[in-house]
Amino acid sequence: MSTDWIRDVAMIDHHAHGLNLSDLDRERFEDLMTDGHNPPPKGCSAFQSPLGLAIRRYCPPVLDLEPWADAKVYLERRAELGAEETSRRFLEKANLRCVLVDSGHPPSMVVSINEMRRISPVPVHEVVRIEHVAEELVQKGVSAGEYADTLASELGERAKACIAFKSIVAYRCTFMIDTSAPTRKEVECAAGEWLREIEKSGKIRLTHPVLVRYGLWVAAELCRQEGLPLHIHVGLGDADIHMAACDPTHFTNFFRCLETWDVPIVLLHNYPFLREAGWLAGVFQNIYFDLSVVTHFSGASTERVMATALEYAPFYKLMYASDAIFLAEVYYLASVMFRRALNANLDDWISRDLLTLPDAQDIVGLVTEKNAERVYSRLQPNVQRMPI
Amino acid sequence: MSTDWIRDVAMIDHHAHGLNLSDLDRERFEDLMTDGHNPPPKGCSAFQSPLGLAIRRYCPPVLDLEPWADAKVYLERRAELGAEETSRRFLEKANLRCVLVDSGHPPSMVVSINEMRRISPVPVHEVVRIEHVAEELVQKGVSAGEYADTLASELGERAKACIAFKSIVAYRCTFMIDTSAPTRKEVECAAGEWLREIEKSGKIRLTHPVLVRYGLWVAAELCRQEGLPLHIHVGLGDADIHMAACDPTHFTNFFRCLETWDVPIVLLHNYPFLREAGWLAGVFQNIYFDLSVVTHFSGASTERVMATALEYAPFYKLMYASDAIFLAEVYYLASVMFRRALNANLDDWISRDLLTLPDAQDIVGLVTEKNAERVYSRLQPNVQRMPI
Amino acid sequence: MSTDWIRDVAMIDHHAHGLNLSDLDRERFEDLMTDGHNPPPKGCSAFQSPLGLAIRRYCPPVLDLEPWADAKVYLERRAELGAEETSRRFLEKANLRCVLVDSGHPPSMVVSINEMRRISPVPVHEVVRIEHVAEELVQKGVSAGEYADTLASELGERAKACIAFKSIVAYRCTFMIDTSAPTRKEVECAAGEWLREIEKSGKIRLTHPVLVRYGLWVAAELCRQEGLPLHIHVGLGDADIHMAACDPTHFTNFFRCLETWDVPIVLLHNYPFLREAGWLAGVFQNIYFDLSVVTHFSGASTERVMATALEYAPFYKLMYASDAIFLAEVYYLASVMFRRALNANLDDWISRDLLTLPDAQDIVGLVTEKNAERVYSRLQPNVQRMPI
Repeated sequence: MSTDWIRDVAMIDHHAHGLNLSDLDRERFEDLMTDGHNPPPKGCSAFQSPLGLAIRRYCPPVLDLEPWADAKVYLERRAELGAEETSRRFLEKANLRCVLVDSGHPPSMVVSINEMRRISPVPVHEVVRIEHVAEELVQKGVSAGEYADTLASELGERAKACIAFKSIVAYRCTFMIDTSAPTRKEVECAAGEWLREIEKSGKIRLTHPVLVRYGLWVAAELCRQEGLPLHIHVGLGDADIHMAACDPTHFTNFFRCLETWDVPIVLLHNYPFLREAGWLAGVFQNIYFDLSVVTHFSGASTERVMATALEYAPFYKLMYASDAIFLAEVYYLASVMFRRALNANLDDWISRDLLTLPDAQDIVGLVTEKNAERVYSRLQPNVQRMPI
Repeated sequence: MSTDWIRDVAMIDHHAHGLNLSDLDRERFEDLMTDGHNPPPKGCSAFQSPLGLAIRRYCPPVLDLEPWADAKVYLERRAELGAEETSRRFLEKANLRCVLVDSGHPPSMVVSINEMRRISPVPVHEVVRIEHVAEELVQKGVSAGEYADTLASELGERAKACIAFKSIVAYRCTFMIDTSAPTRKEVECAAGEWLREIEKSGKIRLTHPVLVRYGLWVAAELCRQEGLPLHIHVGLGDADIHMAACDPTHFTNFFRCLETWDVPIVLLHNYPFLREAGWLAGVFQNIYFDLSVVTHFSGASTERVMATALEYAPFYKLMYASDAIFLAEVYYLASVMFRRALNANLDDWISRDLLTLPDAQDIVGLVTEKNAERVYSRLQPNVQRMPI
Repeated sequence: MSTDWIRDVAMIDHHAHGLNLSDLDRERFEDLMTDGHNPPPKGCSAFQSPLGLAIRRYCPPVLDLEPWADAKVYLERRAELGAEETSRRFLEKANLRCVLVDSGHPPSMVVSINEMRRISPVPVHEVVRIEHVAEELVQKGVSAGEYADTLASELGERAKACIAFKSIVAYRCTFMIDTSAPTRKEVECAAGEWLREIEKSGKIRLTHPVLVRYGLWVAAELCRQEGLPLHIHVGLGDADIHMAACDPTHFTNFFRCLETWDVPIVLLHNYPFLREAGWLAGVFQNIYFDLSVVTHFSGASTERVMATALEYAPFYKLMYASDAIFLAEVYYLASVMFRRALNANLDDWISRDLLTLPDAQDIVGLVTEKNAERVYSRLQPNVQRMPI
């Protein structure tokens, strides 16, 4: 008995970003391979990493090369085919049913969601990043007095067509904040502070906890009304965070409140807080979680990471996502590594007589499609295009 | 060489709760399977979880069915046999030497400790939950002025017959509190606050840090006098906690003080802080730990969880416990899963030439019986009934 | 394909301490085996631990006994050979290229660095522990007014011959402190406070955050000027810490600043924060990490611990170190266990077709030698003696 057929399931990738479609030389390609804001130390290559090995193992065949092609050979072939053809191939081979794309990050380095729709062989749905909407408003010149209403109305507008909202509160002010909804007056005052800071620094980046909280609560209310889930970034990502303060259990009060509202919360990434995320998913009816990013970043260790995710949480809570961004390779790799890891873990359980094949089929169905169908109300089973 | 004989050792289950002996329909049975306060999302079943698989794998044969019986078939057979017969069978098959039962939670949903003694084929010893004793006093109408003395005298009375005290300080006010002993005056003042709050809310639930600390220190002093250990709840449990604040290393000052008093501390559950608990057990002479609850909740992953517990701590510090509650199945399952996981890990070490069979026997002896015998002074070797 | 040849690589042990060369009876030997400040509970032995098993498995053959010799037999043979001969044998068998020794801990229980140089078959380089230098100054009678200048000048002197600086800030005031550089006035005032406290308590132990921060920044500046790395103690060690506050991600602001200065940071030990350390190493160009101490303390589980370290971080960031101290056995054991664990993990990857042999050779070269060569500018490749 084996669960090899996992490779043939068209999965829902419930959280990804845009592609970078420009031509990439080796330096640029390696930049986009890492989470760091600086290149590797002198004499080192980003290919000397779990992700680097995974790329060389799985990606060359998609570009008609042998597995384990040298990085140089690989990147030459990639350049020869061009970014568009390369991207088409990897997105095709990812074998997905649809992709949910966060349209708010980072606009200058990835194609628009419409471009994603053009290139993707499967439907692309939009996840709206709350903090990005706020930053756009400010760019357009909103005043402190108008901020609260304008943001509410803009998010309301976006709620009509999106499949979920997303917050990166952990990036911007950590989870160790007061989680109550701010008053109107507090929002106006905070907006004034932010606008004055922008004037001084020339940089538009929302980090004010009061405004982040306001966005969260406006979006939460829209999620409640429209039956949409709320994505919450957790754990690893860029270097501009304080990881200890990104433990999702610091945000329990907020999650508990949204449980009473019946708003599904989807915890994204979660590494290194996988056990914490699994526990939250186990005790709160509305909490879901994924292994995105670490799926491919952990390369050969994806099996171990998956094993951690399978320790405690019910199977109706784990979902597939890639968190792929920039490189077409990772949309595909995340899919390959996730399938491989799920396959290995379930086969191991079967071999130890702790799982049956029908139960394995149930688990795979939940994790790859059914949990997402349940959470994303605008994704109807057998209706692959969004109704709106 | 193999350690299969682990299955024949009568273990000491050093921490469990009472059974629910009422007839359970499927909805109620699933409720009691989870740590959440809400049912699974619509369309999902609590059987779609690591624990659910483990129940279907191991429990049907105890009720004369084949392994992997369908949940419906299983629950019908369970109803047919009745809660009492079902419970007797699982307690028997758990193959224990004795069980230590926390008599203070949750009184309305489980049978009394005397009922547990009637049903259990092996001796049942009482662990007294400090916070529950305080809540009982208040129910009986203690005044703020009498609170300190009455609690001290009541705990002193309970100390005569119990095998250990237990605190759920982490549930009630987290480990991130001042750990010093409060003054008499502070206790009186806090008791007044609590009584006024009860009058307003109508609910009796001890969360006042001063009163929780007072109970801890009174019990600690009794433990010192009577040679009893103190159980401390750590990590997972219900949804009403802030997990990050339940890291037991936040309570180091308290543990260090009780080390100078020679009072054994037993850290319960510990997931997801197993590495932290193992480290505390390694560096403090008086700290012990277990894998209770997660033993069965992690189902097929119990081996991994056990592997984590075996990483650092000396073998004279780990103990078996189930933390079983409500369902007779889990008293048995925890025992099966723990044995299986210990067996798998030790066999793996033996196969890699990192353990000998005599050393494996030593480890198994410690973990299943000898560590508990050392910690629980009222459990004499070869004297299975408590002397009092 | 196998990576068995890892055993023949002469590794750089980039962090160790001094040996205890006195004759050790069983009680004293067991004392030095543990991280606790108290002996095991009555009736228990420190050999009943992962480290104890590892010693009995690997060390007896070095003293001409069979593997798994009884602890008594082993210690008799050790006494017969004497501490000096025993030490020579274990250091020889550790198969190292050189050892970097922290010369500041704990001076009364280990031999001097010059004694280490006499006994070691390979070059010994000095790591200067900042806090120890400060404590020595105070012992010599520095005044509060002179403190800042005298420490700066003494560290400057030590910078001429050392290979790295080290701080144990986590031990002394945790990572949860302000990380900015204190002003001259603040330092003078804090020094006065410290001196008065010493007068009262009679104990010299630097825990004042302002002074610890001052030492860190002076050393950081010297590291920048001289091209030296800075060692930072993380996670486990003795019982006198608050583990939750030793999560290295609390110190991100400091690390980020030193990244702009191009000063390599080496995170030591890291258990139980291996995932956090691996993430920091992944996103900051200047951060490196090791598995020291836990390499041998985790015994049969070293493979699992290594697997965790290999999950996320690039291979150009992990380094070998033993953190060996006191017992000659652990200089050897750390080396054996690390090689065995690296071998097992890489062979597993190869067997699952997720690594090639040439890539494995690259990884082994980085981890055992090349990463250290890059970080320790005074260690030239093929020049084993320090230039100064």
